[in-house]
Amino acid sequence: MDCSVAQCLEVVGEWWSMLIIRDAFLGVTKFEDFHRRLGISRNILQQRLTKLVDEGVLLRRPYSEHPPRDDYRLSAKGRDLWPVLTAMRQWGDKYAAPSGPPVVLVHTSCGQETTAVFMCDKCGERLDLHDSTVKECAGRAKSPYSVIFRESTSERV
Amino acid sequence: MDCSVAQCLEVVGEWWSMLIIRDAFLGVTKFEDFHRRLGISRNILQQRLTKLVDEGVLLRRPYSEHPPRDDYRLSAKGRDLWPVLTAMRQWGDKYAAPSGPPVVLVHTSCGQETTAVFMCDKCGERLDLHDSTVKECAGRAKSPYSVIFRESTSERV
Repeated sequence: MDCSVAQCLEVVGEWWSMLIIRDAFLGVTKFEDFHRRLGISRNILQQRLTKLVDEGVLLRRPYSEHPPRDDYRLSAKGRDLWPVLTAMRQWGDKYAAPSGPPVVLVHTSCGQETTAVFMCDKCGERLDLHDSTVKECAGRAKSPYSVIFRESTSERV
Repeated sequence: MDCSVAQCLEVVGEWWSMLIIRDAFLGVTKFEDFHRRLGISRNILQQRLTKLVDEGVLLRRPYSEHPPRDDYRLSAKGRDLWPVLTAMRQWGDKYAAPSGPPVVLVHTSCGQETTAVFMCDKCGERLDLHDSTVKECAGRAKSPYSVIFRESTSERV
């Protein structure tokens, strides 16, 4: 499917994958630590880790020869999932954390507890749903967006 | 699990759910249109739509009495998934769109093609992984973050 959302889901769309990535951001590297924290079967965990390594999101590296042991760390591609994870966490904080957010984000530069909001990388001003549109790229007539754009060129995303 | 990422996945973590939400942002409202665009079985589509309605992400509303027909629109809770969707799309654009992004985001205010980047809602400056930390909230000793914070209070997320 010629859609970047679908492509992202292909890589991280299995339920446990994003929680593995969450833990990797928190500094978890070892199979036994992922296993203990996530409470899933060793089999499923190994499958998910292997897929994330195959996709280049995690890097597998031996840290012990006797016994042979690997650890798992985020690659640059994996670290680039931080906005996805942060956006998911903030949505969960707002709608599914009746006792309040388990953690808060602190902006190191200014030292304040913060919420990450989107800004436009061109003009530096706030960017949100109501102040943006999507435009189909030329020559991409088979994207899932095409039908929409043929129906109306001013649909908002 | 006392984790807002997990809570978000509980609601939108099934593969098709985020693509239904993507299409809802594009203005798709009718069962038949979702069905035609996504190409999944009517049964699975109905299950996913019903779950999203039950979770308050979509609103179901009758638009025809004869025959009886409902449409589906994003609630405020659903529209608040825009940053999640946008972050996923941008990651997919970067890592899984070899022919280039199918669509580009345009910032209406400034009129330019843009990438959404995070800023701190307190100081207005750029916010990223390397300039932020997470801090556990008081009294939340059972969150998945607790073990990490006991091991090291300076882990970066």
